[in-house]
Amino acid sequence: MRQNELIRAAYEGKSTLVIKNARVINVFTKEITKADVAVYEDIITGIGSYSGENEIDANGAYLAPGFIDAHVHIESSMVIPSSFMRVIMPHGTTTIIADPHEIANVAGVAGIRAMYKLTDDLPLRVLYMLPSCVPATPFEHSGAKLVAEDMEQFMHKSRILGLGEVMDANSVINCSQEMLDKLRLFDGKPIDGHAPLLGGMGLNAYRVAGAFSDHECSNYDEVKEKLATGMRILLRIGSAANNMDEIMQRIAYEKLPTDNMMFCTDDKHIEDIRRQGHINANARMAVAAGLDPIDVIRMTSYNAARAYGIRGVGAIAPGYKADMVLLEDLKDFKVKEVITRFGLPYTGEEPIPSPLLPPQVFHSVRLPKITKDSLALRCGASAPAIKMKPHQLVTELVYRDVKRDENGCFIPDGDLMKLAVIERHHATGSMAVGILEGFGLKHGAMASTVAHDSHNLVVVGDNDDDMLMAIEALSECGGGYCVVSRGVVLARLPLPIAGLMSNAPVNEVLELQQALLDAAYSLGTKRDNDPLTALSFMALPVIPAAKMTDEGLFDTINFRFIKYSD
Amino acid sequence: MRQNELIRAAYEGKSTLVIKNARVINVFTKEITKADVAVYEDIITGIGSYSGENEIDANGAYLAPGFIDAHVHIESSMVIPSSFMRVIMPHGTTTIIADPHEIANVAGVAGIRAMYKLTDDLPLRVLYMLPSCVPATPFEHSGAKLVAEDMEQFMHKSRILGLGEVMDANSVINCSQEMLDKLRLFDGKPIDGHAPLLGGMGLNAYRVAGAFSDHECSNYDEVKEKLATGMRILLRIGSAANNMDEIMQRIAYEKLPTDNMMFCTDDKHIEDIRRQGHINANARMAVAAGLDPIDVIRMTSYNAARAYGIRGVGAIAPGYKADMVLLEDLKDFKVKEVITRFGLPYTGEEPIPSPLLPPQVFHSVRLPKITKDSLALRCGASAPAIKMKPHQLVTELVYRDVKRDENGCFIPDGDLMKLAVIERHHATGSMAVGILEGFGLKHGAMASTVAHDSHNLVVVGDNDDDMLMAIEALSECGGGYCVVSRGVVLARLPLPIAGLMSNAPVNEVLELQQALLDAAYSLGTKRDNDPLTALSFMALPVIPAAKMTDEGLFDTINFRFIKYSD
Repeated sequence: MRQNELIRAAYEGKSTLVIKNARVINVFTKEITKADVAVYEDIITGIGSYSGENEIDANGAYLAPGFIDAHVHIESSMVIPSSFMRVIMPHGTTTIIADPHEIANVAGVAGIRAMYKLTDDLPLRVLYMLPSCVPATPFEHSGAKLVAEDMEQFMHKSRILGLGEVMDANSVINCSQEMLDKLRLFDGKPIDGHAPLLGGMGLNAYRVAGAFSDHECSNYDEVKEKLATGMRILLRIGSAANNMDEIMQRIAYEKLPTDNMMFCTDDKHIEDIRRQGHINANARMAVAAGLDPIDVIRMTSYNAARAYGIRGVGAIAPGYKADMVLLEDLKDFKVKEVITRFGLPYTGEEPIPSPLLPPQVFHSVRLPKITKDSLALRCGASAPAIKMKPHQLVTELVYRDVKRDENGCFIPDGDLMKLAVIERHHATGSMAVGILEGFGLKHGAMASTVAHDSHNLVVVGDNDDDMLMAIEALSECGGGYCVVSRGVVLARLPLPIAGLMSNAPVNEVLELQQALLDAAYSLGTKRDNDPLTALSFMALPVIPAAKMTDEGLFDTINFRFIKYSD
Repeated sequence: MRQNELIRAAYEGKSTLVIKNARVINVFTKEITKADVAVYEDIITGIGSYSGENEIDANGAYLAPGFIDAHVHIESSMVIPSSFMRVIMPHGTTTIIADPHEIANVAGVAGIRAMYKLTDDLPLRVLYMLPSCVPATPFEHSGAKLVAEDMEQFMHKSRILGLGEVMDANSVINCSQEMLDKLRLFDGKPIDGHAPLLGGMGLNAYRVAGAFSDHECSNYDEVKEKLATGMRILLRIGSAANNMDEIMQRIAYEKLPTDNMMFCTDDKHIEDIRRQGHINANARMAVAAGLDPIDVIRMTSYNAARAYGIRGVGAIAPGYKADMVLLEDLKDFKVKEVITRFGLPYTGEEPIPSPLLPPQVFHSVRLPKITKDSLALRCGASAPAIKMKPHQLVTELVYRDVKRDENGCFIPDGDLMKLAVIERHHATGSMAVGILEGFGLKHGAMASTVAHDSHNLVVVGDNDDDMLMAIEALSECGGGYCVVSRGVVLARLPLPIAGLMSNAPVNEVLELQQALLDAAYSLGTKRDNDPLTALSFMALPVIPAAKMTDEGLFDTINFRFIKYSD
């Protein structure tokens, strides 16, 4: 009778852990009180004067509820959830709301189940939103398609909170039946929005349809308009630059209520988390912007728990879960100690269960036979090309006079390389070849199976032999990234789980990633774009102006494919 | 395809009603904007510049979300829900969270079903918490007993939000199995607390057990301690006096965060509502106490909807329910117009459905044969009596030298009257007779079937004939109140629904109530207590110091029965 035991423990002051002498932050009264906090197993049972067998002396440090990342794609870290946990927990994050959108695009329901399993018994509380847009667009072939019917099986799982970011705002506003079915299925549960710059009546319709949050705001006015419609605003600090500091300054200056605001990272590289922090980095920026530190603490925890209906999380009060974080101050948010959801101090050495994953997840790279013929690109003397721009993911659509062989096929030359995207999930043979300008790699090829959002195989190169070898190198290891030159694999980061994640230790992954960069740069790849990121976003047909999917070169402004030849 | 239609209406600006030129209060941004509000059927679809076929010109009045009463017992109004609605809706209340505790004590599950049916299609949104303490105490016989098993059938009803006020804090803290079963059944749903003056580790245990709100705070320190534990604080203004104005002043002065505070009435007489208002009276007092008017608007609506998880209620924003209230100002909260949950202006003349009620509810007064012998009270020369105190419900336990007949039975004399409580639900014959001092009625009797919380029949009188006639008069009409003198029924208010509520028009009920008071006063009843209320609380064995149940005279301080004879 656990309920019984907890009630008695609270009444009698019994504890399994006591945090002594803390400055306890109360998110309800917005006060800070010097007190001890008693924990029984994983539940806080009292705040006051306590002692027990297991004590941690806080020495006057601030005790806050564990931080919550309200929207994150674990797959983007390129490591499995337990490794990701090792990177974020030292920064005070004890709960994440993850959207397994990437693995779902590769392995569908089996991918979601794998992520669920991989996070079952972690000291980190991992909650999920079910991906709403698989595939993300109709202009590519993903590994799976999820309709409302596929999602029903997950509805009653305790760690599934709602529907993941509804990126396809158009299909909502235009009442696509497939989308409405999903929205109806999640009626009454949290439904994450994702609607950059959507406003006015389009936003009204999006809200009426049920989208309840947004993490894409890029300026203050957008924050305010969306907040006014009742949307929860997720202030994101990921790896991509945005003007979040300016937004936060305006929020503070205009005294916009923050009780419906919270923090997220969305996509943040491991090395950035290590260097800058995780949700504590958002908190640091918010306080620097002039927001009240206790309001900021609420944004790191309570506000998110309340918005997403995470029971018993986000406060230090009797009956709440014991995950907490000890902070040296409320300015830098440097973390002294973390208490996990198990009510235990986080050590970094907790044993991690190794669940059995379904085979689809481990053997996700399934290619047809690719030959030089497959890579041949017949085109005119003037041919369309995707032109990269420095320091951004947006591209330009240009036409270039190109070198061709006797069959009228494109020959890489100067700054013009060959780019191919190959459907890699079901060996359907769907693939497309095109021309890329501005990547800069010479005498080699680079390939990736991380290619948002369908995660097909993307390969770029200036000669077919190296391109074929790069494809082969990834096929062999179950996906990942590689750089090949003159018949030699210079560097390879295997990502055997769905072609997206590694189960190797974090440091090894970071080293291999660095080796990839070094190899790419050594071959002349331009330094004004991270080549890994550039490659991984080359197939995303929602970013202007031109991208390439397995179905062909895509004009993402006019939403149409451009043919190289008839 | 309604979802479809609503999304299109929002996108295209189509409306069924437009409120023009309002000062729209936004609970998210805490701003007031001059704008029009578009409504499509029962849903708000946009705020901005709109026009439509049906328009209401607000003429610059304040438009707020409809008010929410977060805790109320409809039965205490003595009228059926549709009549209660007629009293409160003109004051801007569009949603109530009702606890059918009274009717459940009479008719159990059938009573709850009846209340649910009676509120099915009302313009007022009636939500329920399931009564947790039926019977309220083990010292009396109620009409029904509800255990967790009985409640399961209600769990998936859309208008049942959670578990009603857990009055029996002791059984929680002491882990009574029956209570824990109920708490477990409602785990994760709102569980209303009711724990006057509970603090410290007792409160911690109560919170750990799951009680999530409190409406019994009688001073600021209690508010603050309970708020600090994460309890939602319901600031109550009912008919009983409390020092709510002082509490509100301290909240304002100390700047205690109000986002977990909301308003309720609990028990408020119809005449008090008519005179002072309903939730708008709480708002008026809060603003007068110095709280920010927009924070107060949040307390009237948004905070309660958020706390109790009432979807789409409590804000004026696209996708939210259309119930709103137009206010002349944010000081007196005088109501100009009310928009119902159907998105229509409230007229007071909406047709009310008349659902068929189960027979248990209409024929709830079931008595054994009561004779003069039943009313005989054998006692000693000095006998215990309940002594009433002016202007309060608490009593005193006194011993008096009494007049007795030749059989040693008590004879009413001077200020000592006979008081009887008779189990009236199942004609079990369980009844008790005792002595009451200070009521003041001469040559007659007064009786009631409204007798908290078990609602047995209470009768007081100075002669057995009139007492028997009063019992008979109530038995005949299915319960209610009556005053009898010298063989004549001077006044009677029939409450045929569970012996608690009338289905007569409100004015008729008020007139009969006045007639009862007039009759009672004409017979010498003291004016320092409302005799109806005094009678109705005479059988509540949780109010000090002595009360009387069907099981006998009860010492409510030492929790034991006192015998008149061996």
